[in-house]
Amino acid sequence: MSVKYYYSNVLKYVSNEEIDSLEAKALDARSKLLNKTGKGNDFVGWVKWPREITQSEVDDIITTANDLRKLGNILVVCGIGGSYLGTKACDSMLSDYYDNNPYKLIYSGKSFSSTEMSETLEYLKDKDFSVVCISKSGSTTETAISFRFLRNLLKKKYPTDYNKHIVAITSKENSSLDTLSKKEGYKEFFIPDDIGGRYSVLTAVGLMPLAFRGYAINKILSGAKDALDEFEKKDFSENPMLKYASVRILLSAKGYSVELLAAYEEKLRYIGEWWKQLFGESEGKEHKGIFPASVIYSTDLHSMGQYVQDGQRFLFETVLNIRNPKFDIVNGFDQDDIDNLNYLFGKKLDYVNRQAMTATAIAHVEGGVSNAIIDIEKLDEYNFGYLVYFFMASCGVSGYLLDVNPFNQEGVEAYKKEMFKLLGKPIK
Amino acid sequence: MSVKYYYSNVLKYVSNEEIDSLEAKALDARSKLLNKTGKGNDFVGWVKWPREITQSEVDDIITTANDLRKLGNILVVCGIGGSYLGTKACDSMLSDYYDNNPYKLIYSGKSFSSTEMSETLEYLKDKDFSVVCISKSGSTTETAISFRFLRNLLKKKYPTDYNKHIVAITSKENSSLDTLSKKEGYKEFFIPDDIGGRYSVLTAVGLMPLAFRGYAINKILSGAKDALDEFEKKDFSENPMLKYASVRILLSAKGYSVELLAAYEEKLRYIGEWWKQLFGESEGKEHKGIFPASVIYSTDLHSMGQYVQDGQRFLFETVLNIRNPKFDIVNGFDQDDIDNLNYLFGKKLDYVNRQAMTATAIAHVEGGVSNAIIDIEKLDEYNFGYLVYFFMASCGVSGYLLDVNPFNQEGVEAYKKEMFKLLGKPIK
Repeated sequence: MSVKYYYSNVLKYVSNEEIDSLEAKALDARSKLLNKTGKGNDFVGWVKWPREITQSEVDDIITTANDLRKLGNILVVCGIGGSYLGTKACDSMLSDYYDNNPYKLIYSGKSFSSTEMSETLEYLKDKDFSVVCISKSGSTTETAISFRFLRNLLKKKYPTDYNKHIVAITSKENSSLDTLSKKEGYKEFFIPDDIGGRYSVLTAVGLMPLAFRGYAINKILSGAKDALDEFEKKDFSENPMLKYASVRILLSAKGYSVELLAAYEEKLRYIGEWWKQLFGESEGKEHKGIFPASVIYSTDLHSMGQYVQDGQRFLFETVLNIRNPKFDIVNGFDQDDIDNLNYLFGKKLDYVNRQAMTATAIAHVEGGVSNAIIDIEKLDEYNFGYLVYFFMASCGVSGYLLDVNPFNQEGVEAYKKEMFKLLGKPIK
Repeated sequence: MSVKYYYSNVLKYVSNEEIDSLEAKALDARSKLLNKTGKGNDFVGWVKWPREITQSEVDDIITTANDLRKLGNILVVCGIGGSYLGTKACDSMLSDYYDNNPYKLIYSGKSFSSTEMSETLEYLKDKDFSVVCISKSGSTTETAISFRFLRNLLKKKYPTDYNKHIVAITSKENSSLDTLSKKEGYKEFFIPDDIGGRYSVLTAVGLMPLAFRGYAINKILSGAKDALDEFEKKDFSENPMLKYASVRILLSAKGYSVELLAAYEEKLRYIGEWWKQLFGESEGKEHKGIFPASVIYSTDLHSMGQYVQDGQRFLFETVLNIRNPKFDIVNGFDQDDIDNLNYLFGKKLDYVNRQAMTATAIAHVEGGVSNAIIDIEKLDEYNFGYLVYFFMASCGVSGYLLDVNPFNQEGVEAYKKEMFKLLGKPIK
């Protein structure tokens, strides 16, 4: 019940009857996910994962994180795509704007930028740090290159026990990272074979670096578990995940081809990035799928707002609302009132933010953009876990309603294939 | 000549003949911009601005920045939309990943987030700082609210000379911020009436905070001036700004409705955000306009890449390429080669990045997404100035080709109007 879905501002665009007409298909999609009988059914391990992860694995993750904290206050997350976006989304959502947590995450292995790699190595050279390398196959080029540089720096800094500074999160089978780990003696965690990158934030992939930062990972899992319960048990009429999936597919069928995930809080910017991978990579195939974009309001009302209000009419909006802000502050009184703000005297700033949200919904719906709300209680671990499961479940259903396999990503291979040709990579 | 435009990977989608057929219209659009005879001609002050800004204004900006540096190492940029995005774009492009510049910019006044405001005030309360408040009218609600909080904190910290810690950048006419500045004795800079927010980065709006950070603002202007020369003087056949504008309008007419600005360097992320405002707010009107989105590759090839390769076919790509990276690094040799990377031994990482870029272009063009390149020499002030002028000039031409007024933004008023109703703002 932590996350709610409100869609009254969609009903000008799709009717309740249309939504209800998808009930059977949505329930069928859910059952395929729960029973592993749909497309890509070898990659639905994430569906019941919040129940299946064992407390001993969770404890092992926490212990490992604490061990690394003793070796230095920096953990380099070496990974790309789903191997870092969930971690970054959670950390951005839950940390302070002016973060003074002594334990820091930095990100590497997510590009071929020589400037980024050089500046990262320069930054790390006189600091105590560890590395968590995250790659299912071990052969992701961006990540493998960075890991080789980082490993060499660790060897130089800690000749006798550099391997204690490394944790590998990889697949049990056919992973060169697993082979390397066993040879060099890194602590390992295994990603279940039936959980793909963009659905992996609730495994060690996300939990291990988040535990290093000090987040209560048990609470993340507890939120996800409650979301799974709700997904599994609630009827269509009361099931926010089935409803969200149905509404977006109906909008898409009517030519609304771009979904804007909007939040009125900068801390949710990387939730948007994570969400874009989840939906874009799950649905963007066979020349189908809704194009996912994200904005932070009200700031982006002053950049993208004009387009949303008056541009091409193929957008719909989904707003992430936080019911209780972390901090609130009351607008004051000014003797002179030259800035004409005294009309807000005594009103809380979050109240103003909420009016901006309501006003924007009115203006956008009037302008031709529907506006649904996904409502979360507050910014904490439990709600993060709930929210990511909410989106993963919705995305699985949505993909099945679209009749694609939401769990593969063959298109990602296309640039790699061309790149390996250009680089002359030997074929094994 | 600093910025080039390559479009051979567009010619599968639009022909050279089609591009040439736009010559007369593009030249006409340029002439309207230069001679102030097109739509929105009261807002084309930016066109010759790089020539018109006086050295004494530039010197005044630098002196003011240096004065503020003596009062504390933090400058709060209080502004929204075009009042901060250009500054942030430049600073992100030119600063180190692990920045150790002692002079810092922080951003406020760009949202109604009570959490952001509270954490900012908490962070600042025991630090020495100044504020630059940027608002043409002074009545932008987000900015005015934040400025009131920040002003009160400054008054508390520096009771006798808090006004020395404040710089106002505003309009000469009808600005409540101007009134307040004159009453309280803030240093002021004026934004020319004929330059709108998203075209203002080359005025004090961007230059003042960038000078505080220590950037050579004369070089930014020098780059912009050279871009203006090129824009003004070069024939259509050799004019990259006219070509870029023409290509995107032709693509748009063929149903390619989403433009993805892609860069292979994380430092360009906020160039993307600035660009989205520039084009989205200029063109997104009368139910027209290309929807602007941005990605950072190769990282986002592992999130949005699947969609770009295989999703709905209404995308086209424009890639920002940096010819010379700030730093490069050579891939090493590993005795065991368990990670199978020795085939890259001796090759520079920027070379690999470049192959990824070429490979991605091949894969995407094959998959149905055209791929043009905007090529800049390197990450420095001169190239920043050149690039932003390049985009502004292209955007002006593009807007005229689309037959909209690229210099208004009436749609932004819609949410404000509804918000003021909800908040009960008195009508003056």
